[in-house]
Amino acid sequence: MVLLPKLVFSITVIGWKIQPLNNLIETNMTLLVIGSVAFDTIETPTAKRENILGGSAPFFAYAASFFGAVQMVGVVGDDWSPEYTEMFRKQGVDTSGLEIVPGGKTFRWSGKYRENMNDRDTLDTQLNVLGHFQPKLPDAFRRAQFVFLANGAPSTGLIALDQIQGADLVVADTMNLWINIARNDLDALLKRIDGLVLNDSEAKMLTGELNTITAAKKILNLGPKFAVVKKGEHGAMFISEYETYLVPAFPTEKVVDPTGAGDSFAGGMMGYIASKGNLDNETIKNALVYGTLVASFCVEGFGLDRYKEINRAEIDRRLDQFRKMASF
Amino acid sequence: MVLLPKLVFSITVIGWKIQPLNNLIETNMTLLVIGSVAFDTIETPTAKRENILGGSAPFFAYAASFFGAVQMVGVVGDDWSPEYTEMFRKQGVDTSGLEIVPGGKTFRWSGKYRENMNDRDTLDTQLNVLGHFQPKLPDAFRRAQFVFLANGAPSTGLIALDQIQGADLVVADTMNLWINIARNDLDALLKRIDGLVLNDSEAKMLTGELNTITAAKKILNLGPKFAVVKKGEHGAMFISEYETYLVPAFPTEKVVDPTGAGDSFAGGMMGYIASKGNLDNETIKNALVYGTLVASFCVEGFGLDRYKEINRAEIDRRLDQFRKMASF
Repeated sequence: MVLLPKLVFSITVIGWKIQPLNNLIETNMTLLVIGSVAFDTIETPTAKRENILGGSAPFFAYAASFFGAVQMVGVVGDDWSPEYTEMFRKQGVDTSGLEIVPGGKTFRWSGKYRENMNDRDTLDTQLNVLGHFQPKLPDAFRRAQFVFLANGAPSTGLIALDQIQGADLVVADTMNLWINIARNDLDALLKRIDGLVLNDSEAKMLTGELNTITAAKKILNLGPKFAVVKKGEHGAMFISEYETYLVPAFPTEKVVDPTGAGDSFAGGMMGYIASKGNLDNETIKNALVYGTLVASFCVEGFGLDRYKEINRAEIDRRLDQFRKMASF
Repeated sequence: MVLLPKLVFSITVIGWKIQPLNNLIETNMTLLVIGSVAFDTIETPTAKRENILGGSAPFFAYAASFFGAVQMVGVVGDDWSPEYTEMFRKQGVDTSGLEIVPGGKTFRWSGKYRENMNDRDTLDTQLNVLGHFQPKLPDAFRRAQFVFLANGAPSTGLIALDQIQGADLVVADTMNLWINIARNDLDALLKRIDGLVLNDSEAKMLTGELNTITAAKKILNLGPKFAVVKKGEHGAMFISEYETYLVPAFPTEKVVDPTGAGDSFAGGMMGYIASKGNLDNETIKNALVYGTLVASFCVEGFGLDRYKEINRAEIDRRLDQFRKMASF
C-alpha cells in the first residue's frame, strides 16, 4: 500500500506529461478485485430467479468494466460455466484469477425482498467452496495499481494484500457480519487500506456513533484515509480528513432487484478512478456519481441482466440527465 | 390561484425587461406565510429549553427573510412579547397579520428528541388560541404573489385562500396528522395549490405508495403541479410532471435542535423563489439548495437562535462550500 498523497502527487503530476500517462493507462492502470462469486436465488414481491450469477466480485467487475480493464479473483465450483468466462472476457474482465475447485460447488445465497424493496431476509446461505477460499493471485495481478477487496472475510483480504506489491490505492468493502464476528481481522485490515466503503448502518455499528458524518470521520481513526458511506436510495458520501463529497441516488422508480447495487456502486467508482489515474477533487466527485449511475442501472434488472444491455455511452447519457437534476 | 405555467411565462418574460422587474421586486414580489406560532419546550439528550419561540410561521418567515420581505399571519395570546415583533420587523417580516387574542395563551408544544436526534416524542400539546384560529388577512396581504400555507389545519389554509386574489404561486405544507384526521379538507386544499411540501413518510402515507418517487408523482394526481419531498438528513426532492431535482442535505454533525428544520427549508426555498420571481430550472434547483442551507443553520441552535447570528452573506459562503461538496 502506498499512501494516498503519493498517489495524488505521482499520478496527477505524471498526468501533465501526456505521453507517459497514455503508456500508464495501456500497461499499468490495472484494477484488481478480490471477492465472492455466488449463485443467487432472489425473490421479490413480483418475481423470482433461481441460481443467477451474483456475488460481490462479478457485480463489481462488470460495473468497473464500463471504464476499463478489470482483473477478478474469486473461487467457484465446477458448476461454473464457460459462458460466464466468455461474458467477462468480452467486457475486458480477466478471470484468470478465478479458481475453479474441481468437484466443488459455488457459494449460494438466497434472499427475499420485502414490499419496500429495501429490506430483505436471507433465506439460505451455502458457503461451499467460499468457506475455504485462500486467494492465490496470478503473477500478472500482483502489481495492480488499484485494488478493491469486495465484501468477504477480512482474513481473505489480508491474504490477498500479502501478495500485492506497490498498489497505489487499496479500498475495501465490509459489512455488519464481519464487524460482528471478525473484528480483530477487520481492524488489522483497516490499517492496511486507503479507503473503506460501507453502508451507513455499518459505519454507525463500526464506530458506535449515531450521526453518519461523525461515524464516517471516526473511521479515519481506524486506518483508512477516506470512507465512502453508501446510503442506498439516499445516495452516498465520501469523507476524508479535509474533504466531504455528497451525491444523491439517481431517482429510480422501477427497482427490479437491488442485489449487487452496493458492489456495483463501488465498481463504478473504482473503475472511474482507475480510468483517470488520480484522486483529485473532480475525480472523486465524478467517481461517486458514476458509481451511483452504474448502480442505478444494476437495480433495473435481476442480477447482471441490465448490464448486458448498456454501455459507457448509455451511462454518460444518464450522467447528463443526472447533472440536470442534481448539479447546481 | 394562477396556474404555474402562467407564472413561469409572465414572470420570466417580464424578467427580460429590467425596469418592470425591479418595480415588481420593490412593490409586488410579496411572500406571505400563514401558519402556527408556538412556544416550544424542547428536550434533547444534552440540553433543554422552555417556552422558546417556534411554530411553522416564525421558522418559515425568519428563513425566508434572508431573501426578501415576508408577511406573516398567525395567532398568539397576550403572552406574545413586543420583543418578537421588533425582532421580526428588523428582519423585514411584517407581523401586522399576527392576531393577538386578549386573555388568550399562545399554542404550546413540548417534545423530546431521542439519541439519534431524528426521532422525537411529543410530550405535550396545548392548542390554546390556535384551536379557534380563523386567519384574517390585512388588506395589504391579500394581493401577495407568493403564498405559503405552513403546517396547520387544512381548513385554516382554505379560509386563508378565500381571502387571497391573484397569487402567482401557492404552496402548502402538510403532515401525517392532517392526512389522518382531516383528509377531506386536505383533498380540497390540494386542488387549490400549485405545490405541496411534505416529508417522505407523509408522501407515502398520502398516496399509499412505498417508493418515494412514485409517491411524489402520485401527489400530482391530487391537484398540485409539483411536490417537494423533504427527507431530513437525506436531503430533498422536487417532482413535477416533467422535472425532477435532487439535493442532498448539508452535512451537519452538531445537530443542536432539529425543530423547525422543515419549515426553515420551505422558508429558504420560497424566499429564494420570491426573490427571483420565476420558476425556471435553475431557480427551482437553487431554491432547493438555499432551503437546505438555511435549514442546516436552523438545526445548529435551539429555536431561532442560530438565525440571529447569520445573514445572507454567511448563507452564500456555505453555498460555496456546498457546491464544492455536491455539485458535479
